[in-house]
Amino acid sequence: MTDTPAFAPTVFQTFDVRTDPRMVAPRLAALRAEMTAAGLDGFLVPRTDAHRGESVPDSEARLAYMTGFTGSAGLAVIGRDKAALFIDGRYTLQAPSQTDTTLVDVIETSQGGVPDQIADFVPEGGKLGFDPWLHTPSEVEQLRTKFGDRLTLVAVSGNLVDTIWSDRPQPPATQIEFLGNNRAGRTAAEKLADLRATLSAAKADALVLTVPESINWLFNMRGRDVPNVPVVLCFALVPTDGTAVVYLTAERITDDIRKALDGVAEIRDTGAMIGDLRRLGAADARVMVDPASVPQAVATAIEGVSEGTLIKKRDPVVDAKAKKNDAELSGMREAHRLDGIALAKFLHWFDTEAPKGGLDEIGIVTALEALRREEETLVDISFETISGAGANGAIVHYRVDENSNRGLQPGELMLVDSGAQYLAGTTDITRTLFTGSATAEMKDRFTRVLKGMIALTMARYPKGTTGAQLDVLARQFLWQDGVTYSHGTGHGVGAFLGVHEGPAGFAPRYTLPIEAGMIISNEPGYYKAGEYGIRIENLVHITESADYPGYLEHETLTLAPIDLRLIDETLLTGAERDWLNAFHARVYDEIGPSLTGAVKDWLQQSTRAI
Amino acid sequence: MTDTPAFAPTVFQTFDVRTDPRMVAPRLAALRAEMTAAGLDGFLVPRTDAHRGESVPDSEARLAYMTGFTGSAGLAVIGRDKAALFIDGRYTLQAPSQTDTTLVDVIETSQGGVPDQIADFVPEGGKLGFDPWLHTPSEVEQLRTKFGDRLTLVAVSGNLVDTIWSDRPQPPATQIEFLGNNRAGRTAAEKLADLRATLSAAKADALVLTVPESINWLFNMRGRDVPNVPVVLCFALVPTDGTAVVYLTAERITDDIRKALDGVAEIRDTGAMIGDLRRLGAADARVMVDPASVPQAVATAIEGVSEGTLIKKRDPVVDAKAKKNDAELSGMREAHRLDGIALAKFLHWFDTEAPKGGLDEIGIVTALEALRREEETLVDISFETISGAGANGAIVHYRVDENSNRGLQPGELMLVDSGAQYLAGTTDITRTLFTGSATAEMKDRFTRVLKGMIALTMARYPKGTTGAQLDVLARQFLWQDGVTYSHGTGHGVGAFLGVHEGPAGFAPRYTLPIEAGMIISNEPGYYKAGEYGIRIENLVHITESADYPGYLEHETLTLAPIDLRLIDETLLTGAERDWLNAFHARVYDEIGPSLTGAVKDWLQQSTRAI
Repeated sequence: MTDTPAFAPTVFQTFDVRTDPRMVAPRLAALRAEMTAAGLDGFLVPRTDAHRGESVPDSEARLAYMTGFTGSAGLAVIGRDKAALFIDGRYTLQAPSQTDTTLVDVIETSQGGVPDQIADFVPEGGKLGFDPWLHTPSEVEQLRTKFGDRLTLVAVSGNLVDTIWSDRPQPPATQIEFLGNNRAGRTAAEKLADLRATLSAAKADALVLTVPESINWLFNMRGRDVPNVPVVLCFALVPTDGTAVVYLTAERITDDIRKALDGVAEIRDTGAMIGDLRRLGAADARVMVDPASVPQAVATAIEGVSEGTLIKKRDPVVDAKAKKNDAELSGMREAHRLDGIALAKFLHWFDTEAPKGGLDEIGIVTALEALRREEETLVDISFETISGAGANGAIVHYRVDENSNRGLQPGELMLVDSGAQYLAGTTDITRTLFTGSATAEMKDRFTRVLKGMIALTMARYPKGTTGAQLDVLARQFLWQDGVTYSHGTGHGVGAFLGVHEGPAGFAPRYTLPIEAGMIISNEPGYYKAGEYGIRIENLVHITESADYPGYLEHETLTLAPIDLRLIDETLLTGAERDWLNAFHARVYDEIGPSLTGAVKDWLQQSTRAI
Repeated sequence: MTDTPAFAPTVFQTFDVRTDPRMVAPRLAALRAEMTAAGLDGFLVPRTDAHRGESVPDSEARLAYMTGFTGSAGLAVIGRDKAALFIDGRYTLQAPSQTDTTLVDVIETSQGGVPDQIADFVPEGGKLGFDPWLHTPSEVEQLRTKFGDRLTLVAVSGNLVDTIWSDRPQPPATQIEFLGNNRAGRTAAEKLADLRATLSAAKADALVLTVPESINWLFNMRGRDVPNVPVVLCFALVPTDGTAVVYLTAERITDDIRKALDGVAEIRDTGAMIGDLRRLGAADARVMVDPASVPQAVATAIEGVSEGTLIKKRDPVVDAKAKKNDAELSGMREAHRLDGIALAKFLHWFDTEAPKGGLDEIGIVTALEALRREEETLVDISFETISGAGANGAIVHYRVDENSNRGLQPGELMLVDSGAQYLAGTTDITRTLFTGSATAEMKDRFTRVLKGMIALTMARYPKGTTGAQLDVLARQFLWQDGVTYSHGTGHGVGAFLGVHEGPAGFAPRYTLPIEAGMIISNEPGYYKAGEYGIRIENLVHITESADYPGYLEHETLTLAPIDLRLIDETLLTGAERDWLNAFHARVYDEIGPSLTGAVKDWLQQSTRAI
């Protein structure tokens, strides 16, 4: 299998095998030498960086450096003689293939939380070191509770991995961009005024922000420091009274940047932050931090050695950011129109090529990215495209690389879950593609997934309803047939920010009320291990009902056809058919005018009423 | 309006106006004199007794004695000069009408929890007394936290209300019955063996039970100590090793009772319990108690003055009891068959009489109870029938009395929510009755409620699913029209025990998995204030799916027709119509053979296929 030559190579997505299990042995040996020098019997290496985002820059990819494992979540414990890599159910196949399993035990554990077995990898009575920038106080506390008298946890300043990492990449320092009011909708000053009212109501003297999405949204900043999420990595301190501070690495602080934030925030070197926080703590200020993301190093600086003055609350910017304003919404609608054009071109191309045979997963990703890049305002993909041919479609978090790349056979289903970052906004769409034939079972499953997606889209519900309550609407038709999917039904999506954001979504774990202005994915699926995967995903914008006061409804943002050839029409109700026809009519109305020739004809045919 | 003379007066339900606001003044004065004598500035009077059941015996109705308020939940604080009665939203109309509002402020608060305003009714710096048998440690702790330095909470031994209550009824001492294995399904010894395994796994040395439903189920006992719930009021202590103890009031302890529990439990005087618990505590035993129901007096006895050895966990008997065994299930099916016969007679009678006019709410309750009493094994009603004519149907927790009794006009809807305790089991059924005509709006609402009830009945779902997830299935069709109901969709139901039981149900607050063997009500509704109320309620038994391993389904237990004249057939899907026809066919098959003549003809007509 080779890339389809008609398309230029990908820019944003790579298919390289990034790590090599053979690198693990020498690096473990080097780290253990550092451990010995530091008087430690073990060291913790989490996947996260201090900002706890989904993407980390190469300079922070310590877990991949030490173990070879490149997944988006995980934790290694390196003991004196043993080591373990804890991963969740998404990575049970990937992790053992990437690390050296003769040296590292790969252990599946639940997502989040602290694995029970860490203590088994460090000699009893030993000292286990950790980097206080990479763990929250509650994680540290859970570890201490688990260990009891068995192990001593030691905060280490200066990460030991960095000491042995001779070719460690430089930290990112990409161009910093500021959004105009036409795109941000509200000025940073306005957002800060609201935030200060929230802080004041919580009797907080200040708020520390460590998650870049929150800081970038608050100050209308964007950057390209990490793949897929258009943010500047930074920290911020927002006093309830007084000037906010944005902390950047020294080399990024220029007069232009200072000017851009003039009157809104002072800019200081990241190195100054801990001192500033210590002064706040020494003055007994009540400082709000988000316990889900605040590094231990930050909490310690504020609390000092005395009783804490921390107010642990969910980052209030997360709640504000989730409710998009009119400018953000119109950007998101525009982003979906642009993405719909690219998808129509892609789906038309695929429809022409797939029945001939010869496509493979990488070629499909390459085509999609190339067609998206025809739009000049594309700045990134919003995550690495999940391109699952046939049986690979059943691997929910599949990433294709040169080793795994699978040829697509006509008659197989093809699952493509992808998204883009346009200047206007962020998209996330999954379509399951027809390749010439489909079994009755495939059509039955596809139609049940579709019925669930439609039921959730058509839901109307009173304010105060949570995603935990609504999730079942998307599952009910699969459940009737004794099957389900093992992931949530939907996650929040940022506006030209992270493709995954809190605080609400559609899944049992989302117990906060859904609110108007949020954008949430609606993506039920069905996966038959070893055979095929199906997922259909649109994004919906939560709107106030015009006709039913106090009720919320969904506006679909995504504009791409759902393959009619995979639908068993006998399973659809009249209302479902009406929804599908209206959706397709809208797709053609909004996307059609930007297309010509064969693609336009294809779209017309693909969006016909049934 | 008068009772329909054709039926004998009710035995189980009363319609008397039980209290008189004029009694409040002298009783408050008397209690305040006792407070002064005891050096107190206030005293708490909750509705609950030490067993925290929904029903309390007359001897424990202290809240009604002091305030006149007879609702099933509430708390009064009697201060030196002021007094307040805290009630939840169900009682905003009833409470002010029953108490003397010139002396008692009626304050609405959320159900459960501790009201913020208690401190306002006691002079600052004062002492607020409470009876440690009537509050849990967590309630006491919440009060202490709320009061801070403002008030001192003082546990008072001997309830002050009892001191002034000269004509206080004797505590109940009804006949104690033991269930044979044909009804209980498992012996007490078998249940105890399972319970001890649970205690052992939790590393508990003993379990204290204070909730009668748990104790009665565990020891296969029943009694008639309180209305509606067929239990003996008692306490129990179950050591993980050694003999269990059931604590009864001295006068009930007979040789017969000792013999009945021979080899299973020792019987001791209730007065001996605190001493027994103190000895356990002094021996550093780890004692499990349910924090939701354990009285402070019990916790204090175990903990003594030293550090607690309490294991606070949800009563494990609640979980065991909820999953009915085969004998309990066949009893429950039989109870529903018997209740179906009574309901058919009642609905036929109502259908004949209602269009003529002249019925009233009390007459309807009387007829229903009389027709249930035709079955000899009826021992009680399972709660006071909610009989809401026209606008009264919109009052969700309505209790009819001589003052509120409303005449039913032809054309109005009639809501009847009732249940029975047969020796075989417990029922709970709501039907909304047609009286000659119905508006299009009434039919639309009725049909949406019905569609919700059917959707939840037909649900199939994987093990691990919670009632919080499923609740929306019953609401979705009402939500589509911008309306909902303000109560949960369903509660657990006991087998010849309480009509409300934990731990699972269908509502956002039920976050524990539903399990096979549970019986849960399915009762969506719609209420138009000042006009009418609609509710349709069947009980469902949770079953393992025969066809879909790992999935659960619902078997409907309730056997009574749903009025076809209230259905807008155009709103039903084919599947819903099929369900309704199959349900009605089953009702006729199972109930019809026990009926004759006009009632049988009526049932045949009422269960016809549409």
